[in-house]
Amino acid sequence: MKFLVIGGDAAGMSAASKAQRKNENLQVTVLEKNHDVSFSACGMPYNIAVPERPIEDLVVREAEVFRQKQDINLLTGHEVQRIDPAKKEVCGVTDQEKPFSFSYDKLLIATGAAPVTPDFAGYDLPGVLSLKILDDGRKIKHWLASHPVKKVVIVGMGYIGLEMCESLRKLDLKVDMVKPDPVFVPWTDPELSNVIQQEVESNGVRLHLGQAVRKIETSGAGLSVVCDKVTLDADMVLVAIGIRPNSEIAAAAGIETGIRQAISVDRFMKTSDEHIYAAGDCADAYHVVTGKKVWIPLALRANRAGWAAADNVCGGNTELDGVAGTAVFKLFDLEISRTGLTAAEAKEGGFDPAEVVVKTRSRAHAHPGAVPIHVYMIGDRKTGRLLGAQMVGKEGAAHRINAAAVALHAQMTVGQFTQVDLSYAPPFGPVWDPLLTAANQLVKKL
Amino acid sequence: MKFLVIGGDAAGMSAASKAQRKNENLQVTVLEKNHDVSFSACGMPYNIAVPERPIEDLVVREAEVFRQKQDINLLTGHEVQRIDPAKKEVCGVTDQEKPFSFSYDKLLIATGAAPVTPDFAGYDLPGVLSLKILDDGRKIKHWLASHPVKKVVIVGMGYIGLEMCESLRKLDLKVDMVKPDPVFVPWTDPELSNVIQQEVESNGVRLHLGQAVRKIETSGAGLSVVCDKVTLDADMVLVAIGIRPNSEIAAAAGIETGIRQAISVDRFMKTSDEHIYAAGDCADAYHVVTGKKVWIPLALRANRAGWAAADNVCGGNTELDGVAGTAVFKLFDLEISRTGLTAAEAKEGGFDPAEVVVKTRSRAHAHPGAVPIHVYMIGDRKTGRLLGAQMVGKEGAAHRINAAAVALHAQMTVGQFTQVDLSYAPPFGPVWDPLLTAANQLVKKL
Repeated sequence: MKFLVIGGDAAGMSAASKAQRKNENLQVTVLEKNHDVSFSACGMPYNIAVPERPIEDLVVREAEVFRQKQDINLLTGHEVQRIDPAKKEVCGVTDQEKPFSFSYDKLLIATGAAPVTPDFAGYDLPGVLSLKILDDGRKIKHWLASHPVKKVVIVGMGYIGLEMCESLRKLDLKVDMVKPDPVFVPWTDPELSNVIQQEVESNGVRLHLGQAVRKIETSGAGLSVVCDKVTLDADMVLVAIGIRPNSEIAAAAGIETGIRQAISVDRFMKTSDEHIYAAGDCADAYHVVTGKKVWIPLALRANRAGWAAADNVCGGNTELDGVAGTAVFKLFDLEISRTGLTAAEAKEGGFDPAEVVVKTRSRAHAHPGAVPIHVYMIGDRKTGRLLGAQMVGKEGAAHRINAAAVALHAQMTVGQFTQVDLSYAPPFGPVWDPLLTAANQLVKKL
Repeated sequence: MKFLVIGGDAAGMSAASKAQRKNENLQVTVLEKNHDVSFSACGMPYNIAVPERPIEDLVVREAEVFRQKQDINLLTGHEVQRIDPAKKEVCGVTDQEKPFSFSYDKLLIATGAAPVTPDFAGYDLPGVLSLKILDDGRKIKHWLASHPVKKVVIVGMGYIGLEMCESLRKLDLKVDMVKPDPVFVPWTDPELSNVIQQEVESNGVRLHLGQAVRKIETSGAGLSVVCDKVTLDADMVLVAIGIRPNSEIAAAAGIETGIRQAISVDRFMKTSDEHIYAAGDCADAYHVVTGKKVWIPLALRANRAGWAAADNVCGGNTELDGVAGTAVFKLFDLEISRTGLTAAEAKEGGFDPAEVVVKTRSRAHAHPGAVPIHVYMIGDRKTGRLLGAQMVGKEGAAHRINAAAVALHAQMTVGQFTQVDLSYAPPFGPVWDPLLTAANQLVKKL
């Protein structure tokens, strides 16, 4: 049986590896348009902060390992342009401009996501860069190494923009960030957003909120980012205004797409075509709180979905619950984490949300070194269910969020969550874990 | 209505405060035999490590605050000696040797626990100390300040002994530890126990396993701890061989006691006498995994049980699920955490356990500063249920355990746990959280 995979990153390579392990008689072919496979995309901001570290440090497994040790026919530089579900065939062209076509019995689309292209002029100027695939990271490192960069403008303030602002400040560059939204972190409570904003600004990053970029133009040896009310000079511009699923070839083949144009998959990772699966950043998922489709492209889901698709291609029956939208990132000295729904998402999901914000501490009473932890928690007045939580603090926010994530999977009420037996020792938290303090407050509002 | 509380620590003062807040017409009296109330017992090892910090730093709320601001009749130096359930009265004697008696409508027994008294001679010698109440910590600090202590022997290797060995090493004292059990950490897997043992020994603590103490005797200006095969000199001896519930007066009054002689309570904290509640280290609890009674005296449960008892005394109907046995402690640079059952407890609870130990890393591939994390996970072959988890690592083990604890409350199967959406970012862990890696391995064995 021929198992063909389009895309050689997290979902694609997880699937290819697992399928090959499960079924030695399977012919596994992976077509990847770039030349890097199986790399840690999330590690790029940290790698970029250290010029002497090659970007290739982030490659988890070399292409040759897949080819020789795992017997996977991994073809890089192969861009698939068309899927023909009727013929069960894909075709495309290599970067050497050779056309190719492959037939399949089962196909996995794992084409990932791509940066959103802005609608302003100047996006194509040299020194205007984005960050998604390893080659983007390579280009940024190369630009920084080969130009006398002193000032960088980041357009956008999402995860990538924020992680990159820290990375660039570590390189001692002047960093300006700009976006049209006047709210710094729109998915959290203003109190938590303020804590994050203070951390960023106290690290010397200048934020320009509520300003759209009108154009980028060359200006002497550098660039000028022309915004509504300000023009920012830069030696490099990073455009990080979001990503979108690479679903065009799927849509063109008549495969159903849905939310945010992501490829629609069922709990078995199957698309609307019974021989075609999709996994990773190009595909959607069920949200465990709402039961509805969402597009939350994150690494764990990509790996898990790749495995599930492989199981099912090999005759298994692996069903995934879905995602809780759990995410964490580091921003200078802060840990910022979230799981579940925001207030807006809760309302959209038909819930009647009640919210609390509590400020508590990362260590016990009288234990030295305690710092504030802010917790946001949201529950549903109608059912009492826990809907989500968010945390910000200089310690203790990254892993703690997982307790709330598990509670979301278990569809716990806030009342049930107030009862959970969480760990306590003075160096690690107060007797009442910050999440419990929040839950104890929230349950009174339900 | 008269609400009488015996014991002024975590459970007793939580209950008194909450009851007073809920019902202003309640007459709340607390009888405490010592003079310290509401202190952070768990903070004592950390406080002892810093001679210039007074032990009173650990007092969370002064007795006067309870008396004046909270209108609680808090009587210290009042040792209750007898409960008369028929007369609804308690009597005892103050430390000024004045007899007293108090009647009640509702009584809460929150007498805590006390160190187990060893059966060897010399336990009463000056310089042989234990650690449970604040006055014990005070005595240890005083002994260390007023004697030229260079060498300490710790008898026992439980939480208190281990936390104290770090504390005493921070004071640059020579520390020997001794116990009869040949296994260092009997509740965990040998691989995890070895990691902990290496950490302790590499910090200069000398362990004498498999050796019972025969007697302690004076030897010149110091002490001699005579063991089976070795005699250890000491300027101070800490005996930390476990604790036992202070349930004697309850038992003498005919109140039912059960496991480990702890006072038996239902999910409402009610004892076998309908007017008498018990909470904190003197009382038992249901285990959320087995549904059976356990005695796991920890701070969060004490506070939670105090609140629940107060609610119910005030006419409420607050029911507690029980405990998962979640605990964490710091040992030099290690974080050590656990939740749920050990293999022995699982067998005793009627399960058919399968176990795994995985060694993974605290940060992502290629992220600097990653250290090993060891995870032990146990599940039930018959039902697939997750039964427990334990973690050891220099970072990332303390808060992570809470995800497993919540899963135990939700009675998740290991298969369900493999699906949970845990947080990921390179500074905080691998894409597959260490708990997920363990669950992915364990599910194959079930």
